[in-house]
Amino acid sequence: MAQFCALFRLDCKFLVVLSWTLLCCSVGFAQEQPMSDLTQDCIACHSSVTPAIVADWRRSAHSKITPEKALGRPELERRISVKIVPDQLKDVVVGCAECHLLNTQDHSDTFDHNDQKVHLTVTPKDCGTCHPVEESQFGKNIMAFAHTNLSKNPVFTMLMNTINGVQELNKNGTTIKEADQQTNSESCYSCHGTELKVINKKARSTDYGDMEFVQMSGWPNDGVGRLNPDNSRGSCSACHTRHQFSIQMARKPYTCSQCHKGPDVPAYKIYSVSKHGVIFSSLHNEWNLKAVPWTVGKDFSAPTCATCHVSLVVNQEGSVIVNRTHQMNDRLPWRIFGLIYAHAHPKSPDTSIIKNADGLPLPTTYSGTPASDYLIGSEEQKVRKETLQKVCLSCHTPDWVQGHWGRFDNTIKTTDAMTLTATKILMKAWDRKLADKKNPFDEAIEKQWTEQWLFYANSTRLSSAMLGADYGVFDNGRWFMGKTIQEMLDRFNFLAGTRKR
Amino acid sequence: MAQFCALFRLDCKFLVVLSWTLLCCSVGFAQEQPMSDLTQDCIACHSSVTPAIVADWRRSAHSKITPEKALGRPELERRISVKIVPDQLKDVVVGCAECHLLNTQDHSDTFDHNDQKVHLTVTPKDCGTCHPVEESQFGKNIMAFAHTNLSKNPVFTMLMNTINGVQELNKNGTTIKEADQQTNSESCYSCHGTELKVINKKARSTDYGDMEFVQMSGWPNDGVGRLNPDNSRGSCSACHTRHQFSIQMARKPYTCSQCHKGPDVPAYKIYSVSKHGVIFSSLHNEWNLKAVPWTVGKDFSAPTCATCHVSLVVNQEGSVIVNRTHQMNDRLPWRIFGLIYAHAHPKSPDTSIIKNADGLPLPTTYSGTPASDYLIGSEEQKVRKETLQKVCLSCHTPDWVQGHWGRFDNTIKTTDAMTLTATKILMKAWDRKLADKKNPFDEAIEKQWTEQWLFYANSTRLSSAMLGADYGVFDNGRWFMGKTIQEMLDRFNFLAGTRKR
Amino acid sequence: MAQFCALFRLDCKFLVVLSWTLLCCSVGFAQEQPMSDLTQDCIACHSSVTPAIVADWRRSAHSKITPEKALGRPELERRISVKIVPDQLKDVVVGCAECHLLNTQDHSDTFDHNDQKVHLTVTPKDCGTCHPVEESQFGKNIMAFAHTNLSKNPVFTMLMNTINGVQELNKNGTTIKEADQQTNSESCYSCHGTELKVINKKARSTDYGDMEFVQMSGWPNDGVGRLNPDNSRGSCSACHTRHQFSIQMARKPYTCSQCHKGPDVPAYKIYSVSKHGVIFSSLHNEWNLKAVPWTVGKDFSAPTCATCHVSLVVNQEGSVIVNRTHQMNDRLPWRIFGLIYAHAHPKSPDTSIIKNADGLPLPTTYSGTPASDYLIGSEEQKVRKETLQKVCLSCHTPDWVQGHWGRFDNTIKTTDAMTLTATKILMKAWDRKLADKKNPFDEAIEKQWTEQWLFYANSTRLSSAMLGADYGVFDNGRWFMGKTIQEMLDRFNFLAGTRKR
Repeated sequence: MAQFCALFRLDCKFLVVLSWTLLCCSVGFAQEQPMSDLTQDCIACHSSVTPAIVADWRRSAHSKITPEKALGRPELERRISVKIVPDQLKDVVVGCAECHLLNTQDHSDTFDHNDQKVHLTVTPKDCGTCHPVEESQFGKNIMAFAHTNLSKNPVFTMLMNTINGVQELNKNGTTIKEADQQTNSESCYSCHGTELKVINKKARSTDYGDMEFVQMSGWPNDGVGRLNPDNSRGSCSACHTRHQFSIQMARKPYTCSQCHKGPDVPAYKIYSVSKHGVIFSSLHNEWNLKAVPWTVGKDFSAPTCATCHVSLVVNQEGSVIVNRTHQMNDRLPWRIFGLIYAHAHPKSPDTSIIKNADGLPLPTTYSGTPASDYLIGSEEQKVRKETLQKVCLSCHTPDWVQGHWGRFDNTIKTTDAMTLTATKILMKAWDRKLADKKNPFDEAIEKQWTEQWLFYANSTRLSSAMLGADYGVFDNGRWFMGKTIQEMLDRFNFLAGTRKR
Repeated sequence: MAQFCALFRLDCKFLVVLSWTLLCCSVGFAQEQPMSDLTQDCIACHSSVTPAIVADWRRSAHSKITPEKALGRPELERRISVKIVPDQLKDVVVGCAECHLLNTQDHSDTFDHNDQKVHLTVTPKDCGTCHPVEESQFGKNIMAFAHTNLSKNPVFTMLMNTINGVQELNKNGTTIKEADQQTNSESCYSCHGTELKVINKKARSTDYGDMEFVQMSGWPNDGVGRLNPDNSRGSCSACHTRHQFSIQMARKPYTCSQCHKGPDVPAYKIYSVSKHGVIFSSLHNEWNLKAVPWTVGKDFSAPTCATCHVSLVVNQEGSVIVNRTHQMNDRLPWRIFGLIYAHAHPKSPDTSIIKNADGLPLPTTYSGTPASDYLIGSEEQKVRKETLQKVCLSCHTPDWVQGHWGRFDNTIKTTDAMTLTATKILMKAWDRKLADKKNPFDEAIEKQWTEQWLFYANSTRLSSAMLGADYGVFDNGRWFMGKTIQEMLDRFNFLAGTRKR
Repeated sequence: MAQFCALFRLDCKFLVVLSWTLLCCSVGFAQEQPMSDLTQDCIACHSSVTPAIVADWRRSAHSKITPEKALGRPELERRISVKIVPDQLKDVVVGCAECHLLNTQDHSDTFDHNDQKVHLTVTPKDCGTCHPVEESQFGKNIMAFAHTNLSKNPVFTMLMNTINGVQELNKNGTTIKEADQQTNSESCYSCHGTELKVINKKARSTDYGDMEFVQMSGWPNDGVGRLNPDNSRGSCSACHTRHQFSIQMARKPYTCSQCHKGPDVPAYKIYSVSKHGVIFSSLHNEWNLKAVPWTVGKDFSAPTCATCHVSLVVNQEGSVIVNRTHQMNDRLPWRIFGLIYAHAHPKSPDTSIIKNADGLPLPTTYSGTPASDYLIGSEEQKVRKETLQKVCLSCHTPDWVQGHWGRFDNTIKTTDAMTLTATKILMKAWDRKLADKKNPFDEAIEKQWTEQWLFYANSTRLSSAMLGADYGVFDNGRWFMGKTIQEMLDRFNFLAGTRKR
C-alpha cells in the first residue's frame, strides 16, 4: 500500500480527503469569481489577440480571488499587504483593467484604447495598490536602483561602453565607438532595467480596425531597476513573471538564474551544484512551493534563493522564523560581487552617491580602502547576518553555521588579497605608462585585472557562501585567480620589454 | 478545495471526468492492439536480449495504435502524414518488424536474421512510409546536410582536422597528423552524423546460437545529417529518441541541448536562463507536452525550442497559428551561427556548393561580403521572419515583437563589425607573414580569431535572439569579443617584435 | 480515456488498484512504527530546535521500518546487508539515538548531552552496523581515500597549495603563502573530505539552558574521503544526503554533480547533454527511482550515474544484470581524470603509496610511462569493462557497445598524445631554465600545461565515455587541447626571447 502511495506521489494522510474532494470538486467547484465589466471587455478581444496572456492570467491567483476576500485570510496566509482595499477594486478579481487602468494620470504611457485610458506598463507603484509593503521594501532594495547605479556611475558607464561599443582599428590600436542604446538595452540593461520613454504614438491596423498605440524607447524590458513611465523604479515581473504571477515560480531558483548566472555573478550555477540545490533538484516535485506561509520541513526540505533572501518562513508550530522582505539587503551583511573588493553593504540603495577616498564613485579605492561613510557598520552587519542565519538554524546546529560563516569571512579576506595583488601589477603598468589608466577596462592587461575581481573573486566568494566547491576552485574560482596573476606578470613583462628570468 | 486540487496538481474541471475515468479504465482499458506475427517473433527473443528497448517501444505511440486508426483521427490531431497506408502496415501496430524489415532491398545493411531480411538502421526514408511530409521537409532542412556540409567543404574539413588531429612537436613548431576516423565520429560527426558503411559481416555467438551480423563503420551514430546505408540522409532518432519516440521528449528543450549547447552554439544554455526557459523549468510539470495539436495558453505557457522552430501550434479556438515544419529553416531569416558572419539563410540545404567572391565555399568573404547568389533574398527573409513572429504574437504585442527584433537586427550588425575588426588584425598578420594563411585555424592568433566569431559573436547573437542577457555580455558575449581584439593586438605586436607603446 | 490517463500521468493498469487503494489507505494506513524512548527524547526538543532535520527523517525509510522487518524482505529488495541485527536495534525504527548514540566509545566527538553520550558525526562505520557490505565496499573505493590521496601526496599537496595560497608580489614576481586550513576545507577538501578533529568543548546557551558541545576543526564537511573522529573514512551523507537518505536522490545525477561538474571533472555537465541525460531530464518524472531492485525498462529508460556505477540492476524477469557495489572502481577499467595521463586503475584505493619510475607518487611519469606495479593489469581491466558493459547491453547490441568502446580506447590514446606534446614544451622550458620545475604548477606556462590534462584531456575523455559530443570538441575539449599547445609555444618563445618566425 505504501508502495502504491509512493508510486503516485501521494501522501497517504491526504487520501481520505482526496477521495472526498474528488466527489465534491466534481459537483460544485466551478463557481466563477466576479470580474469587472472593463476586464470582461479586455478579454473579449484579447483572448484571441494575445490568447496565451489571457490563459496565463486565468491560472493566476489574481483571477481567482477578490482583494476583499484575500484580506479575509489569516494574516500569515495573506498575499496582499494593504489594510483597506480601494472600493472599486474590492469585489472584483484583479483583471486586466484593474492594473492597466490604474493610476493612468501618473503614466506617460497612457493612451486611448476602446474608449478607455490604458497604460502599457504595470509598475511597482501600481502593484503597490494592494501590495504596499512589498512596494516600499523593494524601493529600498539595491535592485530597484540597478539602472541608476549603472547609468549615473561614470566608472560603470565606462565599463558598459567598453564592453558594448564597437571597436575599430586605427593606426595605433583601436577606437571604441559609443555603445548604441539598443545594445545597452539588450545587454546590461536587460537585467538592470532600461529607461522607458514614450517617443510617440503610432497607428497600426488590427483585426479590430486601425488603432493608435504608444511607442516607447527601451521597450520591451522587465529589468529589476527599470525606470518607468510613472517615474517609479523596477519591474515586479522580473521575478513574478506576468501574467501568471506564480509564487512557485518566484520561489524556484530558475527565476533568479535569469540575471544571476554569468561568470560575474554565477549564483544560480553554484546553487544548482550545492547540497541545497541538489536537494531541490532531486526532491522538489514532492514539495509544496505554493504554500503561504512557507513551512520549513513540511513544505520544503532545502532552501531555494527565495527562502534565504525573501520569503516568510515559519516552523511547524506556525512561529515566524524570518519575515518576508522585498528589501533583500535586509539579510545581506556583505556585498560580495560586482565590485573590486567585497565590502559592507551600502547604506543607501542609490550607490551612485558614493565617493571613495580617491573621489571615485566606488565603495572602495583601487587598493581596497572602504568608503565607510557610505557603508553599513559592523552592528548592522551583525543584525543582517543573524537574520539570515535564522534560516540556516532550521536545519543546522550553531556550530555548523559558525564553521560555515567562519570560512566565508576568511574567503572574503583571501579573495580581496588576490585582487589586491592583481591591482598592484596593473598600477605598476599604469605608473610605467605601459597601460593608460584613463579607461581602466579597455586594454588587455586591464581586462585581465577586471576578470580577477568581476569573475574569479566573485565566483569564489559566492561559492563560499553557498557551498559550491568547484566554483571556488577550478570553475572560475581560485585556480583562475592564481593564473590571472601569473599571466598579468608575463604580460607586464611583455609590455615592458623585459623578461621574467 | 481549490487548495487540494492545487496540491495534487489537478485541474478541477477534469475531476468529474477523472472520477468516471478511474472506474472505466479499471474495467475495460487493457485492450491489446494487434501486433504482426513478425514483430511478435522479434519480441520473443529481444525482450530478454535487449529488454529496455522493448520496454521503451511498449511505451511508444507506435505500439498503441495501428496506422489505419491513426489516419482516422481529425487532421490536426494526426501524427502521420501519409494519405494511404500500405496494406501490409495498415492493421498492425508499428513494431520492430514494421520498421526494420521495411525497404530491405534499399539497405546495404540488410542481413539474414532468423529467416528474415533485417536492417540495423531505420532511416528517414523508412520513417517516411507513414510520415512522408516530415521526411520531405527534413530533406530540405540544412540539418539533413550536416555531414555533407562539413565533409565536402574543404575549409570546414580543415577546421575539423585542425581540432581533431594530434599535434606533434617538430623543430619549428608543430605538425598536425591527419585526424582519425574514430575521433571525427565521436566529435564533429557525433552531431553532424557519420557515414554508415557496411564493412563486413561477422559471426558472433549469442544466447540463441551463432549468428551473423552486419558490421558498419561510423556506427553507432544518430547525428542529424548521417549518411545512411540506404543512401538517405539523417536520423529521426536524433530528436525522436528511439524506441519511445516520445513527442514530449522532442518538444522539451533538453533534446536540442544534445547538439546545441557548446560555446559554438549555446542555444540551450541561453534558453534555459531566458524568461521563456525559466517559465518552462518552473511550470512545465503542469503543461501538456503530448497534445497534438499543441494549444498555446492551454497546453503550455511559454515556448520551447520546438514551439518556435518546428511544432504545429493552434490557438484555443483551434485555428492554426503556425504549421508543423521539419524544414526548420522555414522560420529562420538569418543564419547566425557556425560561420564567420551572420548572413541570409542559404537557398540550398547543401552549402558545400556555395562559392564566395574569393572562390571559397563560404557564405561570405573573410571581410564579410555575402555570396548573395546562394542566399535567400530579403523578400524570403521577410516571409520567414513573419512566420516565426506569429508565434511571438500569441503572447506579445506587435510593438514588443518589433522592439525585440529591432535589437536583434542591430546585434547582427555590431557583432559582425567586431568580427571584422578581429579579421583585419589577422589579415595584417597574414600579410606581414607573422602567421600562415594556408590553414587559417592552426596558429594561436588564428585560434583567437576563430573564437571571435565561432564562440563570442555567435553567442551574442543567440543571446539577442532569445533574451539571454548574460550570454551577450559576460558569458562568452561582448566582453570576450572586446577582449579578443585586445589580446590579438598584443599577440600581433609580440609576433611582429613591436610593442604597443 | 488513454489521453486522460496520460494527462494525469497514471498508468492504466494501475488504476484498478488505485481506486481500491484510495479506499484502503484512507482507512488503515496511519500505523505508527515503534520508536525508541531515546529517539523520542531527541525529537521532543529537536523538532523545534532543528525542525527541518526531524521532518526530513520522518520522510526517510529509516523512520518507517524496523531493521528486523527490513530483514524480512526478499533478498533483492533488501536495503540492509547485515545478516543479524543487533538486539537493541531490531525492533525500533532507526531514529536519532540509534545512530548518534552508536559506538560512542570509538568516537572522539562523543559528549554528554541530556544524560546521554552522543556523537556529532555519523560515520560509515556507524552506518555499517546495518549496511556492512556497503561499508566494506566503500572502504575499498578510491573515493574513501580522497582526503589521504591529496594530503599524503606531496605533488598534489603542492597543487592544492598553489591554488589556495595567497600570492603576494615580491621584487622578482610572486610569493605564494601557505594555504590556510579554512580555504583548503571549503575548496579541495569540500569534496575530498576534511579531517575532523575535536579541538575542545564549549558551553553555549540554548533554549534549554546552557549546554556543552564538542567543537571540531574541519567541521562542517561531508566529503567522501573525510577523516572521521572514530578513525573511519568517508561520509555516506555525501551521496545519501542526511536526514532523508532518499534513494531516489542518490540515484539522480544531481547528487553526483556536487563534486563532478567542474572543468576538472565535468561528468555531470556531459551527462546532462548526452542522449542518456536528455532522456533522464525529459522522462524521469514517469520513472520509479525508488524501486529496489531497480528494473531496467520498467523502472527507468536510461541510466543515471548510479545505474552504471553503483546500483543493483535487474531485468524484467528479476535476473540480476549487475550487482550493487559501493566500490565504484569495480566497474572502471581506466582512471581517466585527475591525473596527467589516463591509466589502468590503481590496485589500492590508497594512491599515495604509488611511486613511478621517476620516484614521484604519480601513476605515470611526466612522459606517460605507467607505474604498472601499482596499477591493475589488463585481465582485471577486462573484467571491469565487461561488468560495466552488461549495463550497456540492456539497451544496445554488442556491435553498438564495441563501436562505442573502440572510440573511447582511441580517445585515451589521442588525448594522452596531446598531453605529451604539451609536456614536451614544458620540459624544454624547464631544461632551458625558462621555468622552474620545483613547483610544476605556479608559473603561467605551467598552468597552461596543467589545464591541458586537468581540464581539456579529462573533459574529452569523459565526453567520449558518455557521448557528450561538444565537451569533446568546443566545450573544454579538443579545441582547447590544440589551442593550449599553440599558446604554450608562443609563450615559450616569449620567455626564450625568440620569435616563431
